[in-house]
Amino acid sequence: MEDKLETDMYGQGAIIEAFEKKMASYLRKEKTVFFPSGTMAQQIALRIWCDQKNLKKVAYHPLSHLEIHEEDGLKKLHLIEPVLLADEKRVITLEDVTSMNEDVACLLLELPQREIGGQLPDYDTLEAISTYCRAKGIKLHLDGARLLEVLPFYNKTAAEISNLFDSVYVSVYKGIGGIAGAILAGDQVFTEESKKWKRRHGGDLISLYPYVISAAYYFNLRVNKMEQYYNDAKELASFFNQCDTVETKPIVPVSNMFHVHLDWSKEKVAPILIAIMEDTGIGITNHIKEISAKSCYFEVSVGDLYAKIPKETLRNVFDKLDVQLRKIGE
Amino acid sequence: MEDKLETDMYGQGAIIEAFEKKMASYLRKEKTVFFPSGTMAQQIALRIWCDQKNLKKVAYHPLSHLEIHEEDGLKKLHLIEPVLLADEKRVITLEDVTSMNEDVACLLLELPQREIGGQLPDYDTLEAISTYCRAKGIKLHLDGARLLEVLPFYNKTAAEISNLFDSVYVSVYKGIGGIAGAILAGDQVFTEESKKWKRRHGGDLISLYPYVISAAYYFNLRVNKMEQYYNDAKELASFFNQCDTVETKPIVPVSNMFHVHLDWSKEKVAPILIAIMEDTGIGITNHIKEISAKSCYFEVSVGDLYAKIPKETLRNVFDKLDVQLRKIGE
Repeated sequence: MEDKLETDMYGQGAIIEAFEKKMASYLRKEKTVFFPSGTMAQQIALRIWCDQKNLKKVAYHPLSHLEIHEEDGLKKLHLIEPVLLADEKRVITLEDVTSMNEDVACLLLELPQREIGGQLPDYDTLEAISTYCRAKGIKLHLDGARLLEVLPFYNKTAAEISNLFDSVYVSVYKGIGGIAGAILAGDQVFTEESKKWKRRHGGDLISLYPYVISAAYYFNLRVNKMEQYYNDAKELASFFNQCDTVETKPIVPVSNMFHVHLDWSKEKVAPILIAIMEDTGIGITNHIKEISAKSCYFEVSVGDLYAKIPKETLRNVFDKLDVQLRKIGE
Repeated sequence: MEDKLETDMYGQGAIIEAFEKKMASYLRKEKTVFFPSGTMAQQIALRIWCDQKNLKKVAYHPLSHLEIHEEDGLKKLHLIEPVLLADEKRVITLEDVTSMNEDVACLLLELPQREIGGQLPDYDTLEAISTYCRAKGIKLHLDGARLLEVLPFYNKTAAEISNLFDSVYVSVYKGIGGIAGAILAGDQVFTEESKKWKRRHGGDLISLYPYVISAAYYFNLRVNKMEQYYNDAKELASFFNQCDTVETKPIVPVSNMFHVHLDWSKEKVAPILIAIMEDTGIGITNHIKEISAKSCYFEVSVGDLYAKIPKETLRNVFDKLDVQLRKIGE
């Protein structure tokens, strides 16, 4: 058995524990637990806070992952009722929180708010919300699927952001680029309880090492590249914004992601993007979402590949895009 | 992108769909769905049957995995109440089922019943229970974590056993030896519903390919080796039964697994097994479970390795075990 790594078994073992410890130190939380998915980790975090307060109500954004991408797991498995804050087009403000009419056990903030292009509240707002929630006995949970990706904008460490929250979820396959999986962080009582719920959910797999090993590898590789991705995203967004009838949301990205909105139907935009890809070898997106008969959008996330595209090629891509979009209008 | 396999994404893609299709054909069910764990797959199966009948009650053995290994996920997440059939020492009989006082949506049978050494009802009983449940409108679910492993005893195909049940779970990491994961099989309405619940549970991972690829690989490698494991288990059990104060449960195994019961405390047995391992290089178990101050047991599952041990070495191991156990008694 020499020269063999000790595998993980039901959440125990050197590989998984080393990564959990490393992430606890990175987020400066007492403990972290590796989960197969963020969906599972976050429902469980909210459940624990609700149970602790004996109140099955939480607050989050109307476009939270929990509200629109999880087949209502939170409601159907945990019987937790959400209070939706803010409207669908903007992030949650301090006033949204302080003017809430209902008592909730927990407030979930998603940084960045993915479904609106990855927008962020400013840091002062974060701090003020955190202070308010602590005073009111409302637990604050961070949907930090893309936490690392927003650190350059805030110019803060992960620990400094994490410190504002009682529990923190971070995805290991978005900016980090692992295969799948999530980290849930908090104090030891919270994480121990989360392990019980992980088992109840069927997430305490006999082995998670394929996810843990890839997460640990890519974390090291990419943890210091988020500033590059952020700067690249700002550059890339400016290219889009120079094209006719195109506007990114946000106009200046605050992370490695943004949305590209076009004043044309999906049917008119798709053939243009396909032609550009065939011409230049650069795929802009493979997933255009229809908004209306006259508008559509797609999401862009910047990673390692962007920096490898020659500027000449990029210029060519956006020249073509601009020309082709103008042609629709003629 | 040439020469690349299409990865799976949220349960779709060539790799995962090919294996699900193969398993559907093997189990002769309309569809199957790959799950990260059996815990998740089975809770979901029972939930679907309960919802269909609008009755949150199921029947299973008191030592079912759901009852003793899942932190009460079925009760706490799905609010399903179990009716416990049979006593802890034997498998469920037809009479246990027909004399049930309560109405249930579903009956779960575990083949083999792992916690009592992997015991099995005979095939006629299975058939009779299936016929009875169909007549009474009770759905029959198979906990077939070790389904492949019991086929040689029944001398039936997986499809023949599966045909008696409305839904079937099979583990891909026990006899098959994948990394982790499970298959849930049933008709298309059932499996489509199970995918929604998989998402609710947080089990619809962006990528499951590490589990799917290993499951598919080892399935091919081991699907036809179950007869060998079964025969080896019977031989190995007979070696144990020749030792003083040792009795296997069952005395003659009906799958690749059995339990070894000893009339001595865990504290007395452990050093003997360690000494034998140091002497012969053969590890018998690393997990002895205490029953009382005067008895203990451990589980044995036979796979590929057993056949590689020279008979001479085996004889030596069991000679030593017999001698050492006798010495305790002196």
